[in-house]
Order: sequence, then structure tokens, then C-alpha cells
Amino acid sequence: MTMRSEDRLLVRALRREVLPRPPVWLMRQAGRYLPEYRAVRQKAGGFLEMIRAPEHAAEVTLQPVRRFGVDAAILFSDILVPLEAMGMHLVFDEHGPSFPEPLRSRAAIDALRDVDPERAMGFVGEALRRVRRELPDETALVGFCGAPFTLAAYAIEGQGAKSFAATRAMLYRDTSSFEALMGKLATVVARHLHYQIAHGAEAVVLFDTWAGTLGRDDYLRYAAPWTRAVLNELGGATPRVLFVHGGDHLLDDLVNTGAEAIALDWRTPIGGAFERFGERVALQGNLDPAALLATPDEVTRRTRALLDEVAGRPGHVLNLGHGVFKETDPECVAAFVRCAKERER
Amino acid sequence: MTMRSEDRLLVRALRREVLPRPPVWLMRQAGRYLPEYRAVRQKAGGFLEMIRAPEHAAEVTLQPVRRFGVDAAILFSDILVPLEAMGMHLVFDEHGPSFPEPLRSRAAIDALRDVDPERAMGFVGEALRRVRRELPDETALVGFCGAPFTLAAYAIEGQGAKSFAATRAMLYRDTSSFEALMGKLATVVARHLHYQIAHGAEAVVLFDTWAGTLGRDDYLRYAAPWTRAVLNELGGATPRVLFVHGGDHLLDDLVNTGAEAIALDWRTPIGGAFERFGERVALQGNLDPAALLATPDEVTRRTRALLDEVAGRPGHVLNLGHGVFKETDPECVAAFVRCAKERER
Repeated sequence: MTMRSEDRLLVRALRREVLPRPPVWLMRQAGRYLPEYRAVRQKAGGFLEMIRAPEHAAEVTLQPVRRFGVDAAILFSDILVPLEAMGMHLVFDEHGPSFPEPLRSRAAIDALRDVDPERAMGFVGEALRRVRRELPDETALVGFCGAPFTLAAYAIEGQGAKSFAATRAMLYRDTSSFEALMGKLATVVARHLHYQIAHGAEAVVLFDTWAGTLGRDDYLRYAAPWTRAVLNELGGATPRVLFVHGGDHLLDDLVNTGAEAIALDWRTPIGGAFERFGERVALQGNLDPAALLATPDEVTRRTRALLDEVAGRPGHVLNLGHGVFKETDPECVAAFVRCAKERER
Repeated sequence: MTMRSEDRLLVRALRREVLPRPPVWLMRQAGRYLPEYRAVRQKAGGFLEMIRAPEHAAEVTLQPVRRFGVDAAILFSDILVPLEAMGMHLVFDEHGPSFPEPLRSRAAIDALRDVDPERAMGFVGEALRRVRRELPDETALVGFCGAPFTLAAYAIEGQGAKSFAATRAMLYRDTSSFEALMGKLATVVARHLHYQIAHGAEAVVLFDTWAGTLGRDDYLRYAAPWTRAVLNELGGATPRVLFVHGGDHLLDDLVNTGAEAIALDWRTPIGGAFERFGERVALQGNLDPAALLATPDEVTRRTRALLDEVAGRPGHVLNLGHGVFKETDPECVAAFVRCAKERER
């Protein structure tokens, strides 16, 4: 008695079916705010070690499902894993991820390796298999990857920067090298997502975290074509979700990429987004993750207001507008999840 | 033969007078991208040392006026100076500014000192006097300060953070302490701006760099009232400009604060902003500062396109959508400034 993927609540919402309640999950729901996560991290010895060990990655992926009963598990991994597989040395320390040798030349770009996901990132496939085996039947499994622009920006800067000056300089002054890099990244990203789908992912999220720093013309010129290439390469058999942090000014263009769903940043009013785009795409989000730093009562009040604004329109996936903060009280996450479930009554 | 303030091009544009061309200046036009700035910084010994020495602060304020002929000089200082004057220990190092002892308790907030600008920040007044003395007659002098929310966020976090989790936690969980802090800050900010006006500032910019991380409801509840208090306390005799980084979703609310001008982030299409708000406020901006990392020809192309989009509407101040990057080629700044001046022909 195994439920088919297309019958799981998340997948149905991404197909914009009429449902008794919206599915709910949270970006970065597996994370440091959970004591059980911190215990695994300590045992594993570090962040990258957790990602590379399927038993640890699977365990922390399952934790929020057990604790909160969310409707989807998103594989515990990092958007930068494919860059490491392409040959870049990746380091995680207390300041976050960094590449000690950022990409700054055409030679360095040309030296990036092509990636066979099974050989280079087999731990991802194995973790997905383990998660699916233990996941409740009704819970969907979600894969993800960084989008080409965001991966390029990280690779060129060497770290998460505020201005991405080095990226912008390459993109304007050495456009052909930048495009060569984007082409390579689009190929690897699509292959990585295909691989996750082949190992059980029933929906995929493309995180273009940094594309929101681009004005609209630059987004269309320097990021959107490669996002579209990835989405086209995947096809629509598995729903594709696109997220851009601070992407409110790009919403029309994000919808035009052809993704089945757009994950909204918390600063976009979701009611208005449904009015403009609700016939074309599903919309995920978008409570301010900082709201989860308030009390559970306040979280409930705000989440109910958000659901009232959506007014039960088909195609809504309740989520945050960005990842859960490490300072979050798990009781606030529980309150958030309850707000979706109480709509069924 | 001294020109009156109200006849200077910048002030006239902020009053939305019809002009032969828009005035032009650049946020962070005095900065590390200029070799003559780096020379002064080396002589002074550091960033804070430059700010505190009126001869150095005045010199770097004047440099971009001499080199580019911009229509306004903005005093070289830092938005965090008032927090230091209130008793917080401020440090500048290679990671930027930080407060080693961030504000995390009501007691720490209550202990913040009231500020007499002449006694605590007399170097600001003295630098303004020196700049005005040497400034070409037609060039306007601009003062500035951080807005209360941005100052509060820096003080609570201790540094420029991405999520401002500590700030949001205080604002939701200890609202009365947060409001006490905002009240104190609004008083000091208004006093600091009054002081700058008394010493020659002919327009003031209130930088609310971090308010764009707030959703609209939170902005209206936790930031706007104190911005409005500052603006009301100043009155409109000297034009007031308000800038919010990433503030596109807040534009209606920013216009409603009563400021004479809104400085637009580069992601807001300026033509649309003029259509919506051009009868109510002047609009400053908003070329992407990253565009100045391209070639001078590309800067010229983009700046002309921006000016064409504005179509000579009254109330336009040509500027960037954020500060000049330190990696910028001064030739690109020169090309940007030329685009405003060539409109006069």
C-alpha cells in the first residue's frame, strides 16, 4: 500500500489541485534550532561530514517530519555541493561556507570538472533512498540545488558577499568567461536534479539566493537564460519550484521561466501575488522567518492572517519566505505547522 | 557674491523645480576607489581617525567635487557615529564596523547617554564649516545620519548581520525595550541632523539601510513611526531625503513619511516610480552601483537610458541605487557624471 507521488499533498498543491488544506513545510527545517540536529552534528563532526554521510543526512532530514509532521522532507544538503564536485575546494567554518581559491580566470573556469552525480555525489542518492524508506507514506520528498547564477556568484567571490563586486566585474568585463561558467553550471545543476529525481525526489527547488541583487535587465541577461535551460532540461514531469531571495522586482520574470511554482520572499504580499499569478503557477510561502522569533501565539496570529489572505486558493504551499533561523524556538515552528493542519477541520 | 542655498541645483531639484539638467552626486562618492582618498586614509591612520579629524574629513569630502565636478558634497562620516557618541564602543577593522558590546538588555539601553552634538560630535560641525569654505559656490553641501531602525539593528546585533535575528527577537519579545531604544535614537538622530543643518548642510539624507529587511506591516509598526518623528522634528525648511536599501516593497510607506525625496534602490524601475510618486516627492537615483564595474562606455549607455526613462521630469537627482564599490574605476564615475551634464546642452 504505497501512495503514488502524485497523490501526496505537496505534489497536488504544486499541480494546483483543489485541496482541503495547504501542505506545509519550512525552508531549512532541518537545522541548528533543533537539539536533535545539534546532537547529530556533534556526532558527525561537522556540517560537510553530515552531508557526506547518508545515515546522518537521512536522520536530520527526517527529524522535522517526526517532530512537526510537516508534509515534505527536503534532503539535508547544501547548494554548494555541486561546486565541490566540480573540483572547487569547499570549507565550512563558523563564518559559513567559503572557497579559499575562488574562480577568477578563464583557465580556472575551463578546469572545472564535468560531474557524474553517481560517482561524485553518490551520498546524495543514498541519503534520498534512506529517507524515502523511513518517510511516512503521505510525506513528499523534495530535492534541491543552487541555480547557476547563485553558484557562479559563490564560486567567483569565494564566499557569500554583499555586493558581489567580483561577479559583476566578470559578468560585465569578461562576459564570455562568465557565460562559459554559467553553461557548465547549468549542465551540472540539471544533471544533479535529474539524479535526485531518479532517487526519489518528487519535487525540486532551485535556489537562486543571490539573483535578487540583480536589477531586472541584468537578471534577464545574465541569470534567467541558464535558469530556463535547467528547467527545460528537467521537463515538467516532476514539479519545479524556483526561489529568489529579495526577488519581488523579478516576479514576472520568475513566472516566465516556466517553473510550476515560485517560492516567495517574505516581503512580497502573497495575496497580490495570487491575484497576479495564481492562474499560472503555484505559490509557496511566505511568512517572515523572523516572525518565528516571536511567541507561538504571535506566530499563530500571523500565520492565520497569511492563510486568510490566500483565502484557500489552489496552488498554495505554506512555508516561510526564507530559511528558519538558528535562534528559533521549535514551539514556534510547531505553531506554524498547526495553522496549516487546522484548516482541514 | 554667494549663491543662496535655494538656488543650488541639488536643492532646486529636491524642491521639484524645472531645471535644464538633473543634479548629480553619488552615494559614497568619497571612498576607497579614489587613490587620493587612500592617501589621506593612510596619513590619518584609519577610518574613524579620518572622521574625527576635521581636516581629513573635509579633504576627502572635497575630493570627488574636485575630480568629477559633482553637484553636491556629502560630509565624510559614518552612520554609526551617533551610537558611539551615546556611549557605545565602536571598532572599525577589515570586516567593517562593529560594537564589541552589543545592546541586549534594558539596562544597557537605559545607560545610553543623551547627546549634545557640539560636545560629543563637534568634529562634524567643524568639518562642515571647512567644506563649505572650500566648496565651489554652486555645489550643495549634504548632511546625513542613520535612521533609528538601522541604528537600533546595528547596536543590538553588534555588527551588520544578514538576518538581524537578535533585533527581531527583541522587537517581538521585548517590545517596550525596543521602543525605548527607538525613542532615544530618534531624539539623537534629529538633534544630530539639526546640528548639521546649523553648520551648513543644505539637505539631509536619512539612511535606513536595513529597514528593507522588514515586511511592510513590520516596517509600519517598528520603524516608520520613529522615522516620521525625526522628519517631523526637522521640519521641511531643509530638504529631507530618505533611503532604504531593498525598499521597493515599502515605497508607498516611504513616500508617506513626508520626506521631500526618496532615494531609490537600483532594483526599483525609476520611470514607474516617477509615474506613481513624481507629483509628491523628488526621486534620487538609481543606477546599479555594480554597473560602474563595467567600462565607461557601458556606464554611459546605461546612464543615458536611465535619464531617458526619467524623461526630464522635475524632481530627479541623478545618483546610484547604493554606494560606490571600492573596486570602481574612477573613469566610470566620470562617465556617469558627464551624462547628467551633457543634458544641459
